[in-house]
Amino acid sequence: APSAAISAKFGVCFACHGVDGHAILPTYPNLAGQNKDYLVQTLREFRDGKRPNDVMGPMAKPLSNNDIDEVAMYFADIKPGKK
Amino acid sequence: APSAAISAKFGVCFACHGVDGHAILPTYPNLAGQNKDYLVQTLREFRDGKRPNDVMGPMAKPLSNNDIDEVAMYFADIKPGKK
Repeated sequence: APSAAISAKFGVCFACHGVDGHAILPTYPNLAGQNKDYLVQTLREFRDGKRPNDVMGPMAKPLSNNDIDEVAMYFADIKPGKK
Repeated sequence: APSAAISAKFGVCFACHGVDGHAILPTYPNLAGQNKDYLVQTLREFRDGKRPNDVMGPMAKPLSNNDIDEVAMYFADIKPGKK
């Protein structure tokens, strides 16, 4: 389970993508074991509006580059398939 | 390993995303065990230009809805983490 700090900062991500990286809805992507660089690139694109998305834009907006790296690492490090 | 028919039709996908759904580059997403509905939605958005992407637009262009369902199922069914 994530540390208190991670949970506090990224609880909103876990709400849809799951604390284990398995999304709560089939139309949301699972993130467990996803490539860290891909996650960083994608979150930055959401944040900077390069990839417009009504849901993820506002989610990514407040994130610093450091936050993005941290949450990307969190999900990338989850062994996929582990519930 | 995929059937000959799948390989013939989706070999171009495997070139970047891997026949095992593990991408060849860290900036490309792994697709193994990804949610089928998410993959279908994403491929349609690429195909229909709703989600502009210089690489994936042309890849998705020729795909029929049936092709999209088939390749989405292929990747979704891979046990993630399996090399």
